[in-house]
Amino acid sequence: MTVNWSKKFSERSITMKASAIRELLKLVDSPDIISLAGGMPDPNLFPKETIAKIAKDVFENHGGKALQYGATEGIPSLRETLVKEGLSEGIEGLKKENLIVTTASQQGLDLVAKIFINPGDTIIVEAPSYVGGLQAFHAFQANFVTVPLDDDGIKTDVLEQKLKTLKKDGVNVKFIYLIPNFQNPSGVTLSLQRREEVLDISHKYNVPIIEDDPYGEIRFEGEAYPSLVAMDKIGNVIALRTFSKILAPGLRLGWIIADEEVIKKLVLAKQASDLCSPSATQYIADEFIREGHMRKYLELVRKTYKEKKDTMLKALEKYFPKEVSWTKPEGGMFVWVNAPEYIDTDKLFEEAIKEKVAYVIGSAFYPHGEDKHHIRLNFTLPSKEQIEEGIKRLGNILKRKIK
Amino acid sequence: MTVNWSKKFSERSITMKASAIRELLKLVDSPDIISLAGGMPDPNLFPKETIAKIAKDVFENHGGKALQYGATEGIPSLRETLVKEGLSEGIEGLKKENLIVTTASQQGLDLVAKIFINPGDTIIVEAPSYVGGLQAFHAFQANFVTVPLDDDGIKTDVLEQKLKTLKKDGVNVKFIYLIPNFQNPSGVTLSLQRREEVLDISHKYNVPIIEDDPYGEIRFEGEAYPSLVAMDKIGNVIALRTFSKILAPGLRLGWIIADEEVIKKLVLAKQASDLCSPSATQYIADEFIREGHMRKYLELVRKTYKEKKDTMLKALEKYFPKEVSWTKPEGGMFVWVNAPEYIDTDKLFEEAIKEKVAYVIGSAFYPHGEDKHHIRLNFTLPSKEQIEEGIKRLGNILKRKIK
Repeated sequence: MTVNWSKKFSERSITMKASAIRELLKLVDSPDIISLAGGMPDPNLFPKETIAKIAKDVFENHGGKALQYGATEGIPSLRETLVKEGLSEGIEGLKKENLIVTTASQQGLDLVAKIFINPGDTIIVEAPSYVGGLQAFHAFQANFVTVPLDDDGIKTDVLEQKLKTLKKDGVNVKFIYLIPNFQNPSGVTLSLQRREEVLDISHKYNVPIIEDDPYGEIRFEGEAYPSLVAMDKIGNVIALRTFSKILAPGLRLGWIIADEEVIKKLVLAKQASDLCSPSATQYIADEFIREGHMRKYLELVRKTYKEKKDTMLKALEKYFPKEVSWTKPEGGMFVWVNAPEYIDTDKLFEEAIKEKVAYVIGSAFYPHGEDKHHIRLNFTLPSKEQIEEGIKRLGNILKRKIK
Repeated sequence: MTVNWSKKFSERSITMKASAIRELLKLVDSPDIISLAGGMPDPNLFPKETIAKIAKDVFENHGGKALQYGATEGIPSLRETLVKEGLSEGIEGLKKENLIVTTASQQGLDLVAKIFINPGDTIIVEAPSYVGGLQAFHAFQANFVTVPLDDDGIKTDVLEQKLKTLKKDGVNVKFIYLIPNFQNPSGVTLSLQRREEVLDISHKYNVPIIEDDPYGEIRFEGEAYPSLVAMDKIGNVIALRTFSKILAPGLRLGWIIADEEVIKKLVLAKQASDLCSPSATQYIADEFIREGHMRKYLELVRKTYKEKKDTMLKALEKYFPKEVSWTKPEGGMFVWVNAPEYIDTDKLFEEAIKEKVAYVIGSAFYPHGEDKHHIRLNFTLPSKEQIEEGIKRLGNILKRKIK
């Protein structure tokens, strides 16, 4: 007698799919494949020595606290630091009651889903959007309504049109999920005018915004816009931030800024999810900021990623067929490639692997997988040589497909 | 215009309650209150110097990996270590495919809830049971059926009776949640005979067992019984383990051992929940075990906790009225006090705080809060002096209540 697990699993788990990205990453573990997939920072930049020094000091001198359970909201000193950073960014009136530390941004997404989404509830997401966000919301059985992007971010006219229709139909839209800066996967940034429009629409239709901003600090050219949470005056924005891109993902730390009432619910949800985030890494991250290392590290990150991005854009010009276009991000980690509609990038992936180059299939970023002619390219993890060679290989494959 | 969040929150979040323990802990933050509440290890025992040394080495020499994203399943070397430990414990045929690293045990509970529980699904829990487990399952809107404990653990006759009735009623019971060793809050241990009975019942009714075992290694006297996952031969047991009690909760690390099919679902659920557990602390914990520090540390923990437990039992004999009884745990962290039924320990709590001593109200450990004459006492965090004085204060309060 063996266990028939399928009779026990929950409905939500039956439709859970392996992230296309994660599954594909397993394929590309082979060292001779050049991976332009993934979304990892460049580990060569990690401030290893500084963190080693800080960690030693933290465990030696504050080990009693750093190794102990911490408050669900986060350790007080880190929250204080993050409030200070938020205030200097222009988030008026920010208090520690508006902030919870999370086990990185992915947990932020999970907790937001937990406190807002009943099975079948409607949410609005960009198309394309971050796979991890879609997964987190899918796990709570959300109903996805998509709004397309252009070079200025989410198309606000379509957004308003859809909200109007949904309102007429009596649908209580739970939130709008946006990645305003160097969007994953598209690399586009929400323009200032669109930011104002999105906030107006959010107020008018009384739908909160989830502002997921992992890349805002990784701007290497052009002018930065204020975040939605800083522009918003009524507490309608729930902002998700993370240390994964500005310091190191291996610490598993992020934070959420929101209305006090929302934070209270998030705290309850987090208690049930993992009690608290690692005190050990919270103390390390806090000390890293307090000692003033962050700005210097970010300068190095921006400089290096800009060079890698430039390398990729140059290679794209050189090797990609003229029928293919791509975004030119001013920050972040990704370039989004638009192939002619007759090229199915899901199918192309196998060929790419044969030619020893990997990317992420565009369809992974659509909740209904409807778009199949995009490619996401990462320029932060591979070396410049790998970028050049990888784009060359991919360009050759694409050229063969052009009709 | 302000946001009306209550119209947006999910049904599950509306009934989420603050953990009684966590809320009460806020009250007892005052330094002049002796807290016998909480469930924290003694931070004076943490191997701070060893971890400081290991952390420095890990970040200096393996920083590229320790600060990077890791596999959702956990970093390979830690999984390898944990498989080795599991095999030497007697879990036959254990492979890495049967194991996932979690962000401590609380996440284990959350993930289990996520993959098994639809709103309204029935699960069986001990009464009393761990608050965090109840919270995790409550967040997924489980329907709780309770089975009482005695000195040998869960009453298997009642368990079978309830399963029989539920089967007759066509209810698909999703799992039985058990804490077999030094149960939280009761301190009792499931006897060997009961272990066999529980497994037989689990097989007969085809209901998986969630074996939550944070305290198994913290046995300071008496004979250890094999774990349910080691005794089980058909893969019906899902075992939750944690580093929180055997090393340090601030690392936020635990693991789950289960059938491969279950692990696959847990991996998908974890991807959506937090992508991966902290690589930083996984490398540290792995190295701590590999360098052979664990056994020595556990010896110190067991010795110290035994002394503290003995101090508490002696003080209970000395100061508590004879109408009150309590468990005599052979390990773990808690003593469970049984007051006469006419003493409402919820109400008593306020008086205790006035007299500068804190405990956890027994009702917190019942899904329906029905039992109000128990008290949970922790002996690992307070000093021996605090234990003696705290029990004295509590004894005086109880004596005044005896009719």
